[in-house]
Order: sequence, then structure tokens, then C-alpha cells
Amino acid sequence: MWVVPEKEIAGLMTPEAAFDAIESVFASMARRKAYNFPVVREAIGYEDALYGFKGGFDAAALTLGLKAGGYWPNNQKHGIINHQSTVFLFDPDTGRVAAAVGGNLLTALRTAAASAVSIKHLAPKGASVLGMIGAGHQSVFQMKAAARVNKFERVLGWNPHPEMLGRLADTAAELGLPFEAVELDRLGAEADVIIAITSSFAPLLMDGHVKGPTHIAAMGTDTKGKQELDPALVARARLFTDEIAQSVSIGEYQHVIAGNLVQQDAIGELGAVVTGDNPGREGDEVTIFDGTGVGLQDLAVAAAVVELAKQKGVAQRVEI
Amino acid sequence: MWVVPEKEIAGLMTPEAAFDAIESVFASMARRKAYNFPVVREAIGYEDALYGFKGGFDAAALTLGLKAGGYWPNNQKHGIINHQSTVFLFDPDTGRVAAAVGGNLLTALRTAAASAVSIKHLAPKGASVLGMIGAGHQSVFQMKAAARVNKFERVLGWNPHPEMLGRLADTAAELGLPFEAVELDRLGAEADVIIAITSSFAPLLMDGHVKGPTHIAAMGTDTKGKQELDPALVARARLFTDEIAQSVSIGEYQHVIAGNLVQQDAIGELGAVVTGDNPGREGDEVTIFDGTGVGLQDLAVAAAVVELAKQKGVAQRVEI
Repeated sequence: MWVVPEKEIAGLMTPEAAFDAIESVFASMARRKAYNFPVVREAIGYEDALYGFKGGFDAAALTLGLKAGGYWPNNQKHGIINHQSTVFLFDPDTGRVAAAVGGNLLTALRTAAASAVSIKHLAPKGASVLGMIGAGHQSVFQMKAAARVNKFERVLGWNPHPEMLGRLADTAAELGLPFEAVELDRLGAEADVIIAITSSFAPLLMDGHVKGPTHIAAMGTDTKGKQELDPALVARARLFTDEIAQSVSIGEYQHVIAGNLVQQDAIGELGAVVTGDNPGREGDEVTIFDGTGVGLQDLAVAAAVVELAKQKGVAQRVEI
Repeated sequence: MWVVPEKEIAGLMTPEAAFDAIESVFASMARRKAYNFPVVREAIGYEDALYGFKGGFDAAALTLGLKAGGYWPNNQKHGIINHQSTVFLFDPDTGRVAAAVGGNLLTALRTAAASAVSIKHLAPKGASVLGMIGAGHQSVFQMKAAARVNKFERVLGWNPHPEMLGRLADTAAELGLPFEAVELDRLGAEADVIIAITSSFAPLLMDGHVKGPTHIAAMGTDTKGKQELDPALVARARLFTDEIAQSVSIGEYQHVIAGNLVQQDAIGELGAVVTGDNPGREGDEVTIFDGTGVGLQDLAVAAAVVELAKQKGVAQRVEI
């Protein structure tokens, strides 16, 4: 078994490598060469923790395994972050465990890469203004990955807690982009690409906010009840997601499906846009990518980082 | 993360330690201090493999994690056994991975321990004849664990392929017990305790075979369609299992529930017999334990072996 510890990931994995891994696995999913297993997600009744497993198999890349871990809201007292996960890869030829990889930074990178893949394939032509909704830890990764795939000229930002907006300003400055904190109506009217990355349980971005051709990556909704977008906005947009079954059950689209505003067959897979089987954006419409987060993303970036770690002599070989 | 490789398990784990771990976790399950997560089990469409995860949390022992792996029927060409698994333990206080443990021998030991726990608590008084149905790899573990908890005087054996019966004869000889290969009617009539450990998809032991007070540990049925016992035999017996939900869906009791021969509330938990909340055997009836195999068993023996490995300096500490 190869072991790649959490502390080595930052020195190994790049946003470029994460982007390539995620674009490729989305394509494999659309070609039905890769599929995710049912997700296990349990409130274990201890430390208020949510724990579970997201697994899958990519028969094209021969990647098999799972991410295990979850959300421990009291981890500050241990001096570690609340999201803790580990990825385990298995040899699909034998069933033996092949690698254990720290999954915390990888999760951030693969989530950012997913919205970047959607921006590359769905952003309006000439998109120059990026709108960021949410200024938490993950927003930094999302903005950097977005700036890599599209030449933005400025960034607008909004957050439920305005005192956190400095994080967006700092990240934009690092990218050499002007930043302005705005209300959501201005953000929706001016931004060509919007990334929503909050933990909201009520719609933030309303239908009336969004003007003109716009691509929205809704990355925050991964649980029943969570919601970032006005159902009326979703109902008039062209819809894409990573995995349809998950988007309509725990993703952003759960609300329009439950409200019967959208039929499931109106939702396309981002991977089919990558392969060319879905035309993607066709004009000046609003497109939405509902990034729910699937196990195959975790496996794809973990497999990539294990290869990099082996090349650089950083992976540790451990008998198991 | 502590790593305990497969090759060290035999030198660390004893049938005694496995028995104690399994008896204890069954009791925790009955006290509702421990529960299993939904099982993921996938035919991945590659190498005819079945792959999945069995996880759980024991809040009494603070054991959290999963067994991952499965069944690779073509593994002989790689010179390794078809069942391959690894157990991962997590720290329930933080969500960080705490241990990775080779799961192959542990699976054999925990399966044998489960039937032994059932024999200790449910065998008729003075049971002296052990009947073995099945002579595969696992039968050796089952017979040895049974002989540890009950003083048998002789062993009877049957197998669908009689040429394999030498394995049962050898194991009985190792235990100092006379062995006789018999037909199922004699086995059912003479044995006081019967262990069924086959991969059968049709009933082998029929109602008419079984005479007098008998305890049957049905250990082979863990999949939809598998079956070892005549439904009429199950219908007249007192029924116990490791986990009721699993026994009625993929265990031996799936058939009597589907056939409406037994109501689910007639099935008791072996753990409740261990705790004394269920009286267990009450007279000369036939008792059956349906051992379907749950993730908490794997976690319990893995946690025990990690402690033993740490004490003996065999566990390897690996940064992750």
C-alpha cells in the first residue's frame, strides 16, 4: 500500500492536475465507463459528527475505492479542521488496498476543479466579471481555479457575514484582479460567471438579480434542505450537474424537482458537455452547474496524486 | 495511523480474543450502543468482482470505521485468495483515520466467533455431537471455534463435493475428535449442534432431517437468493440473528419472510441473549442463528488486534 500523507499533498497536487483529473472523470461518467456507489452518510450521535463513505469505480482509468470521513464540528478544540477525510484506492484486478491518501486538501481542490470545468465549458463568450457568493475557506480554492480557466477582469463578492469579505479581496489581489464588495442585485446583474459556495438553507441569489447571459456554479448544496438559488431562477436556466441522481435528491435541484418546476430529463451531465454529446451553452441563456460532489472526483485526484508522489519519491510503501 | 499487515494477524489474534470481541459487540448492538451503517455492495463489472463497504459505530467501545473489499473470483491467477478486505478504523473524536488492518484472516475469525457465540448461548444442554455442513476454507475456522466453547465428543460432516471432506476429517483429528462423513439425514438426526457454511442457493438441510433439540448456526447466507435451510425447518424453530434487518433481506430468513412463514417480530437478536434480555433456548426446541456478518464484527476484531499489535510492538506508525 502506498501512503501519501496530508502534509505532502500541497507540494504535489496542482490546480492544473486536479482540473485534468476532474474533467476526465466527468467524461468517463458521461460515457458510462465510471459510476458512483450509493453514498453512506450517518449522523453517528457522537461529537455531532457526520461520517460516511463515497465510493466508485472508473473502468476507463481503473480507479476503484472510496473517500471515508466527514464533518466533526468541534474539531477546533483539537486544533484541526472540521472536515476530515482519507481516500483509499483499491487494485481493481485483485481487491487489495493499493493506497491511502490524506483527503482534506484534495477535497478542496476537486471541488474547485469541478466548478472550473463547468466554467471552461459553459461560461458565456467573453465573460469578464466573476461573482463570488460566499467567503469561507473553500472560496479561495474556487476563485483561483476559476481564474485559471477564464480571463476575468474583475471580481465582485458577497457574503452573509460581510466581515469575512477580506478573504475574497485578498484572493483577488493575489490573482491581480480588482475586487469590489457588492449587494446581490449588483452581483447578479454584472457578473458573467457566478460561483455560489455557502452553507445556506434558503435561496440567496434571486431570479430578479440575474441579468443577461450568465453561468452559475452552485457548489454549496450537498444535503437535503440546503439551497443557494431561487427556484424561479433555476426553472428558467439550462441545467447541468455532476450526477443527476444526487442533484435531485441532495443537490441544488432537489427544490425544483420537489416543486415540480423542472422535469429530471431537463438536467444534463457536465461530462456529456465535455465529451461533446451535449451541446452545452447555445446562446445568451443562464446556465447552472449543480456541483454536488461525487466519490469519483475524490478517487480521480487521489489517483493523480499517488502517481505524482511515486514519481517524486514522496509516497511511502507500507506492507498491509 | 497504525498499520497492522495481514501477515501479522495470525501471530496476534486468537480465537479467544475474537470470541470476546464478537460477544461484546453483539451485546452493544442489543443495547443500542452500536449500529451498522447501510451496506454498499457492488458488482463492478470488472473481473466479476463484488466490492463494497460494511461500516458501523460502537459508541460503547468507541470503534468507528469500515471494512472495504470484496470477492475477486479470479484471484488464483495472482496467487492470492478470492476474498480480499481491509479494515479502516477512525478516531470518533476527530474523524481522522486511526488504523488500517489486513482483513482477510480477521473475517474468517469473526465469522467463526459469531457461530461460537451462538453455540455458547443456544446449544442444547449436554450437546456432544457437532454436525458440519460444508467443507470449504471457512469450515476449519468454524469447527475450531465451536470446539472451544462446547465439549463435543464427535463430529459428523457432509459436503456437496464429498472429495473435500478430508478437510473436516483433518480438522477434527487436530481437535482430537472422531469424524464420520454421513448423509444429511443422519447428520440432522444425530447432531446436537449443526454449523452450515456453504455457498448454497437451495435448501440443503430439510425439516425432516432434524430430530430432537438442536442448535443450527446458518453461516453461509449473505446474499439475495442464497439458502441453506428448508423454510419448514426455519418456520418451526426459535430464530436468532446478528442483525434482523440484514437477516430478512440477504440472510437465511429472507425466504421465510418472503414466504410469509415467519413474522419479523419472531426473530431475536443474539446480542439480547448475551445481555440476558432474551431468554434464548427454553427447552428442547430447534434454535437457529442466522449469521449474516455485519461491519461491527469486523471493527471489533480489528480494534482488538490493533491493541494487541501495539502491545507487542508489531503495529507500524505511519503518518497520513
